[in-house]
Amino acid sequence: MTRWLDADEQRSWRAWIAATLLLPDRLSRDLQESAGISLSDYEILVHLSESPDRRLRMSDLAEATLSSRSRLSHQIDRLTAAGFVDRQPCSEDRRGAFAVLTPAGWDFLVESAPVHVASVRDNLVDVLTPEEFAELGRICAIVSERLRPAAGCDADCT
Amino acid sequence: MTRWLDADEQRSWRAWIAATLLLPDRLSRDLQESAGISLSDYEILVHLSESPDRRLRMSDLAEATLSSRSRLSHQIDRLTAAGFVDRQPCSEDRRGAFAVLTPAGWDFLVESAPVHVASVRDNLVDVLTPEEFAELGRICAIVSERLRPAAGCDADCT
Repeated sequence: MTRWLDADEQRSWRAWIAATLLLPDRLSRDLQESAGISLSDYEILVHLSESPDRRLRMSDLAEATLSSRSRLSHQIDRLTAAGFVDRQPCSEDRRGAFAVLTPAGWDFLVESAPVHVASVRDNLVDVLTPEEFAELGRICAIVSERLRPAAGCDADCT
Repeated sequence: MTRWLDADEQRSWRAWIAATLLLPDRLSRDLQESAGISLSDYEILVHLSESPDRRLRMSDLAEATLSSRSRLSHQIDRLTAAGFVDRQPCSEDRRGAFAVLTPAGWDFLVESAPVHVASVRDNLVDVLTPEEFAELGRICAIVSERLRPAAGCDADCT
């Protein structure tokens, strides 16, 4: 027996879809205009910048950015061509290549971060009360934790 | 002066990003497995099914699905090839073409909807309390209403 969404649930579901389509689109457009980079490419640089030695194994980077390996590989090609990332082979394990943030990539992040943060504030954080934003984060954590692939699976299953 | 995100805001922001990447990915994979269609193509059929005469102008469909015109055009090509959608020209206005849900498209929706709703429940609605899901919808509505393009702009600006 199908449990259809009732009218209120339908409304919530539509609002969720709209926000999840419109917000990344706006943030990505703001980043493209101000820094010439997409949101998902930017997120890769952020993850590298926050890692020890500013580098991550490709498999860990795929997990951190929730990207497929093939999509990530294309993104890293693009970021390498831009001079923001270097690939470093891993001597022991061919599959264990690293992506490393270059000094140019770091400078780029330092320069573009203020505009990006302002865009995140303008379009999300400051549109809500602090309590609403905290509640949004709490609820999204419940949803994402349940969906996140089991830790270590990537290493064990490939 | 840049107002950086503090640690709590950063955590909420990361949870939002994770949920908005993981959930559509899961729903789309469930739809692909059960019905051989992506979530965004499926959403087009839903919007058509809910419209008078099961048809919409391409410009209205683009607005409803928050899709760019060029992306939507590719999707409609795919759905037409599958036999789920027909294009109908508009005699008065070349730009005013319609997309129409075919009987086969309607049957496909009727058949695949129960599995899709179950997936939405399993991965979002039933993971939360009714209060949390309602609050998520309320907050997303605030965010999306602010981001939504002004109504009628598409007609006035093209």
